[in-house]
Amino acid sequence: MRDFLPADVRRRQYVIGVIADVYERYGFEPLETPAVENLDTLLGKYGEEGNKLIFKILKRGEHEASGEADLALRYDLTVPLARVVAEHRAKLPRFFKRYQVQPVWRADRPARGRFREFYQCDVDAIGSRSMTVEAEQIAAASEVLARLGFADFTVRLNHRRLLTALLDRSGLPEAQHGLALTALDKLGKVKPDAVIADMAARGIDAATATALLGTFVDAVGETNTDTLRQLEGLALRADGVAALQELGAILALTDSTVAAGHVRLDPSLARGLSYYTGAIMEIGVPDLAGSLAGGGRYDDLIGMFLGEDVPACGISLGLERILVVMAERGMFPPAVARPPADVLVTVFDAGSLGDMLALAARLRRGSEGRALRVDVYPEPDRIGKQLKYAASRGIPFAALVGEAERSRGEVAVKDLTAGDQQVCSRDLAARFIIDRLRATRG
Amino acid sequence: MRDFLPADVRRRQYVIGVIADVYERYGFEPLETPAVENLDTLLGKYGEEGNKLIFKILKRGEHEASGEADLALRYDLTVPLARVVAEHRAKLPRFFKRYQVQPVWRADRPARGRFREFYQCDVDAIGSRSMTVEAEQIAAASEVLARLGFADFTVRLNHRRLLTALLDRSGLPEAQHGLALTALDKLGKVKPDAVIADMAARGIDAATATALLGTFVDAVGETNTDTLRQLEGLALRADGVAALQELGAILALTDSTVAAGHVRLDPSLARGLSYYTGAIMEIGVPDLAGSLAGGGRYDDLIGMFLGEDVPACGISLGLERILVVMAERGMFPPAVARPPADVLVTVFDAGSLGDMLALAARLRRGSEGRALRVDVYPEPDRIGKQLKYAASRGIPFAALVGEAERSRGEVAVKDLTAGDQQVCSRDLAARFIIDRLRATRG
Repeated sequence: MRDFLPADVRRRQYVIGVIADVYERYGFEPLETPAVENLDTLLGKYGEEGNKLIFKILKRGEHEASGEADLALRYDLTVPLARVVAEHRAKLPRFFKRYQVQPVWRADRPARGRFREFYQCDVDAIGSRSMTVEAEQIAAASEVLARLGFADFTVRLNHRRLLTALLDRSGLPEAQHGLALTALDKLGKVKPDAVIADMAARGIDAATATALLGTFVDAVGETNTDTLRQLEGLALRADGVAALQELGAILALTDSTVAAGHVRLDPSLARGLSYYTGAIMEIGVPDLAGSLAGGGRYDDLIGMFLGEDVPACGISLGLERILVVMAERGMFPPAVARPPADVLVTVFDAGSLGDMLALAARLRRGSEGRALRVDVYPEPDRIGKQLKYAASRGIPFAALVGEAERSRGEVAVKDLTAGDQQVCSRDLAARFIIDRLRATRG
Repeated sequence: MRDFLPADVRRRQYVIGVIADVYERYGFEPLETPAVENLDTLLGKYGEEGNKLIFKILKRGEHEASGEADLALRYDLTVPLARVVAEHRAKLPRFFKRYQVQPVWRADRPARGRFREFYQCDVDAIGSRSMTVEAEQIAAASEVLARLGFADFTVRLNHRRLLTALLDRSGLPEAQHGLALTALDKLGKVKPDAVIADMAARGIDAATATALLGTFVDAVGETNTDTLRQLEGLALRADGVAALQELGAILALTDSTVAAGHVRLDPSLARGLSYYTGAIMEIGVPDLAGSLAGGGRYDDLIGMFLGEDVPACGISLGLERILVVMAERGMFPPAVARPPADVLVTVFDAGSLGDMLALAARLRRGSEGRALRVDVYPEPDRIGKQLKYAASRGIPFAALVGEAERSRGEVAVKDLTAGDQQVCSRDLAARFIIDRLRATRG
């Protein structure tokens, strides 16, 4: 787990700001849930491997010595959402669209862009089975990435029921579907042979595994229309055909959005989590092995808490991976690396500290509706040392009040970039700095 | 622990936004640390009662069955900061001023404005012993409260070494100072007699306790100057006298800031945490028993991690209590309760869903640099039902495209507040809505 020093936080805040802004434009509302959930709420929702990665919290008080855990750190933002919907159903609208940007915790082995504490940025829509939900979420996530400067992302799209129909058609017993999906999820990250070997290792008949992989590889055409047509030709069972129709609808709808041209039908996309029931998607870029975002429809999960059928679909953006790729590609706008203050108020002697606090207060009020960020040097060091400190921190201006300025109620404003200095009244100093800042950075 | 539904999150974001804005103006930079710290980092920093309230996390993997804990949820933001400063010293400036707005966790009994997961909003300054640090932090916290609309807050100010000198003067053995401070901390919240009884229960001689309380009550004068003078007359040991000089300096400096008139010297203020070494402060309002903020100087804590003397001082704002009082007093500006979207795009039939997504995309781009927040009704329900849905959610506008509008490339924009409707081109629709929004809400 990592500390985020100021420069890190500013980059994170920039990306989170873009994400929240785009999601708000799509009509999603913010939700926050506690870091800690009941252990029972989380267990059994993330598959066998997920269960092992949950951080468990010791019971408090007299039970502490028992070593038992009753609470846990949340593993994702989807299961907590399902719990919230079940718990607050009456207070929520018929169609509840929420976004949520919060950390989750997994006792995983760290890797590039993978950490034990990491932020997810989720959009989910509760209450509708319409494919506009999938299309809007694909559009919203695509718009986030486009706004951040990604042009080369691909949204891989598939459907859990299509996958099941394909597995079924290959003669794989239903009891082995889960194993096959876990193995298949790695196709695209590893070679087909490795996937076949993985399936074999999980006890799947080698001939079936090979045939299965063949089907997935053969089905993919040049265009989404080609792929759809190939799959339609496979004589799938009824729910597989219905899944293909849903995929066709999502593809057609996304063509009306900013995601147009970015979506690719990929029948081998599996997604690891066990709660998906319909369309699934994953967004990636060529220079990252993992995905920047993933999601899908999970119509049964909320019902597990509520005992009532509530359709749901969501996409989760992986903040950490987005940040890793943006850093590697140098995608942050220069303004994100802002200095700690616009101006440093220097201090001539201990006796003037109070007056310097008053000057700082005046400068902070700014001018014409624009405030200034003002630091005060805390100790009466040599002025040269104080100016050097300002420069070393990238603070562009310094305010100096010597004997002469004090007696006239003035202040000398030194532009540490240009090197020149302007003496003006205290009321005009903020205006002068703001004008210069506007001229150089806007 | 609580879920925050959208209306809650917007109120929280509003307050956090004001806090971050003010702290940035004072030259504080953002820092974030992980929720989870090594258990050893936290143990022994919060006094005996604090230790018991730390949430502990089970060791992972093969050691899980042992029931041992090696990690813990952070208890405050100060100890993690001390660890960060020790760990990243070389990367940090000589004077490191950071703000941090993150949740902390305590296995405490919940009460009004007290929760097991709650946010702290801390400012701390590392690296200077100057009293400008205390004065600026008192000013920054005061400016936050003033900007939020609090006019009646009081900053109680005291000094740990003054307290020690007063306890010492009363003849209390040093071994009992900690007990006396814990009891004294409740003065102001409970009656003096209850504090004396509490001290007696902790094994402090009743006569000493009574004399001690007398000193504290007698010392408080009408004005801060009176109180200072009373205390100066008590013939304290040298470090008590030095503490009084520091308090005098802080009082004089805060007179040059927005905190002027809000600061009150209170020699009985103790603060529960064990790491304070100098000035301590607590900010309160008459209608809340607890405090809205608290802090102080802790010059030894970072040294515990670093083995090197690093002065430090900080103030922590309690977000939850601020929110409780603001809700009770009705202090939130109306704009904080924003609807989930500015406009709802309605859907006439399933065949027009794609076109409606395209219309939504156009409206989201907005006009003249202002974007619109746009929701799309996901299903082709009756239009009346869709308009009712928009109204029930407080969405002020609905966009309708029937046969006639579609054939002319137009859209009907219905103002659900005024009740009228305007048919215009798709390019002008955003402009029309934005003009109306500006006219009614700015």
